Amino acid sequence: MKLETPPGTRDFLPEEMVKRQEVIDKIRATFERYGFSPAETPAFEYAELLEDKYGEEEKLIYKFEDMGGRKLALRYDLTVPLVRIFAMNQLPVPFKRYCISRVWRFDRPQKGRYREFWQCDVDIVGVSSMKADAEIISCAIDTLESLGLKGFKFKVNSRKILDDLLAKAGIDKKDELAVFRALDKLEKVGEGQVRAELKDVDEKKLDNLIEMLKTKNLAGVEKLVGETEGVKELKELAALLRLYNKEIVLDLSMVRGLDYYTGPIFEVDLGSYGSIAGGGRYDKLIGRVAEKEDVPAVGISLGIERIIEVMREKGLLGGKKTATRVYVLRADDESGTEALKILQELRNARIPADSDLLGRNFSNQMSYANKIGVEKVVIVGQKDLKSGKVTVKDMKSGDQKTVDRKKIIQSL
Amino acid sequence: MKLETPPGTRDFLPEEMVKRQEVIDKIRATFERYGFSPAETPAFEYAELLEDKYGEEEKLIYKFEDMGGRKLALRYDLTVPLVRIFAMNQLPVPFKRYCISRVWRFDRPQKGRYREFWQCDVDIVGVSSMKADAEIISCAIDTLESLGLKGFKFKVNSRKILDDLLAKAGIDKKDELAVFRALDKLEKVGEGQVRAELKDVDEKKLDNLIEMLKTKNLAGVEKLVGETEGVKELKELAALLRLYNKEIVLDLSMVRGLDYYTGPIFEVDLGSYGSIAGGGRYDKLIGRVAEKEDVPAVGISLGIERIIEVMREKGLLGGKKTATRVYVLRADDESGTEALKILQELRNARIPADSDLLGRNFSNQMSYANKIGVEKVVIVGQKDLKSGKVTVKDMKSGDQKTVDRKKIIQSL
Repeated sequence: MKLETPPGTRDFLPEEMVKRQEVIDKIRATFERYGFSPAETPAFEYAELLEDKYGEEEKLIYKFEDMGGRKLALRYDLTVPLVRIFAMNQLPVPFKRYCISRVWRFDRPQKGRYREFWQCDVDIVGVSSMKADAEIISCAIDTLESLGLKGFKFKVNSRKILDDLLAKAGIDKKDELAVFRALDKLEKVGEGQVRAELKDVDEKKLDNLIEMLKTKNLAGVEKLVGETEGVKELKELAALLRLYNKEIVLDLSMVRGLDYYTGPIFEVDLGSYGSIAGGGRYDKLIGRVAEKEDVPAVGISLGIERIIEVMREKGLLGGKKTATRVYVLRADDESGTEALKILQELRNARIPADSDLLGRNFSNQMSYANKIGVEKVVIVGQKDLKSGKVTVKDMKSGDQKTVDRKKIIQSL
Repeated sequence: MKLETPPGTRDFLPEEMVKRQEVIDKIRATFERYGFSPAETPAFEYAELLEDKYGEEEKLIYKFEDMGGRKLALRYDLTVPLVRIFAMNQLPVPFKRYCISRVWRFDRPQKGRYREFWQCDVDIVGVSSMKADAEIISCAIDTLESLGLKGFKFKVNSRKILDDLLAKAGIDKKDELAVFRALDKLEKVGEGQVRAELKDVDEKKLDNLIEMLKTKNLAGVEKLVGETEGVKELKELAALLRLYNKEIVLDLSMVRGLDYYTGPIFEVDLGSYGSIAGGGRYDKLIGRVAEKEDVPAVGISLGIERIIEVMREKGLLGGKKTATRVYVLRADDESGTEALKILQELRNARIPADSDLLGRNFSNQMSYANKIGVEKVVIVGQKDLKSGKVTVKDMKSGDQKTVDRKKIIQSL
């Protein structure tokens, strides 16, 4: 039997998982500070729900049949399930939910790209004003900063402004999605290939559009297309974000692949590391899924897999290798019972602690404590105990000190 | 389109999810206090790994093919994936890992039984002595108590003792699994059906076995079969647990369905609520999966779905409905900017806080704050602000007090 995980999936052993868990806990804390509450949905949905939502990415959805012949699909993102729970339930509006959970895509596995990975999403449903977009953006920036990330650019664009520019360039509305999808790859594949993909679109019009996309600020856009709704929205958004003390950058060439965006779109760019978050406004998706009136919504998804890799490279993950802080070491056989007593005292005091289960000698216990990576070792032995003491060793510095057996909790 | 989750799966809306998250956080904290570290594995495995592990339950495994024709299966429990990661990696021994994550079983959905549900497992790999079993049992008892659960019985039995009794009754070793599986259902279906299922086994021998299973203590067992290895183990386990101050109860009629157990087996019984946790020793499973020498292992799985239902019925879940603690209410339009400033101050002070995004009037803001279930509302209005004050309302008691605008953080 092959002992391995299926391609594109991973195990997280404790050494990796404790770091991952710390990152997730920090993200969760900031999401909650911003008034988002958690919601979860099943790993699989009726396949039908996911169909016709993801454009050309739809082919990456894992579909299967259950033993009752139901057509199911593994969750492709956290947005469509959110839309479903909103459409199914009478929820207070605004509905602010976060979700940190796994999704699956049958993508070609490569460095930093997996078939099973985690997404971290915040979304606000029920608010059409830019106040919601400003909350989302401010929350995302604070979350990334809480992880120690710096120097990223929060890029903003607007599907409405892109529409305005498309019209201004004289490109037909029917070519809109094709043009956006091609432009989404502009940075990655270059102008040549984008033009090749769009050979059915009038070349001069395309030139004109590409030239306009180089505009660097809203005033410039306004000069081109007037004070359209898209322009008004981004102006309002920029004004709100000044109140939050948050900086954004207009980038008309940032398009984003998904079809369902309708207003502002976001992408967080960390220089050579590329995009670490993305999102936008999707005011039509809930109405489409619920087959009822539209409900405005906006959200962002943090790319936690890439974020963790960046944090690792930048040394931001910390050296923690285990959830266990203290190892209680038995210096001689006579001290076994006292060591167990101390172990349980630490645990009752909420200190994650562990001790030998294999009857190992002193040096093998110490080597295990070192290998799993605890902060401190408490050495319990007859010699110390006779004078009411135990020894505490700091595993990083190597320093040892003798402390009062009764004050052991405080000393840790 | 049907807007629903597939049968046996559930959404967790914020009101439910915050309670669930609190339970999981508490369980995780106790697991970590006991020196367990987290590890995660993919949602799906190669189907082959899960085959031949679960006896007659194997038919409940969700199997499917990916687009590359690989035969995959959704994780059926957390034990077999643990065994795989241990077999694949060079891990320090003892390997103490916890995992709180979802599994899938194509079971008949019914009250309290789902096709997608969460398991909470702790396991120790690499220790053959009862010290590991004692750690597992003590950890499970402390975890359940940390949730406020009381009056449960920690039942222990031993597959080795069951073997001894089977031999003593003269029942053939080849009928062992069939007898165990039938006896596992004894309480549920009654003696009549168990006998019907085991009609190939000599009736007198079966009578004899069922009679012996009524023995209430180890001394009684020892009288029947002598001081066998199984008896020695449970004596040692009982002695160790006295050091931990933990109580267990011998219950020879508790068998557990899974085939892979080899030594002590556990079940936690909460009176009319039934079983809320189960586990045991499985010393042969790793060797079988790795096709190498055996590695001893023992673990327990807490039935979190049932535990949450019990906690709800006993009023132990608490009334928390949202992760958000404070709602900042704008009493008049002029105070909007100051309200946003206060909101961000609270968030920076790590207080989960939210505010209006819909331009609602006073009473609609208050009614929303009440609906989502925050603890406190901070009312920001011109009248108060002129004297450097804001009003804080406690939503439970209804009490209001005026506090210094600058001391708002301390006042919350």
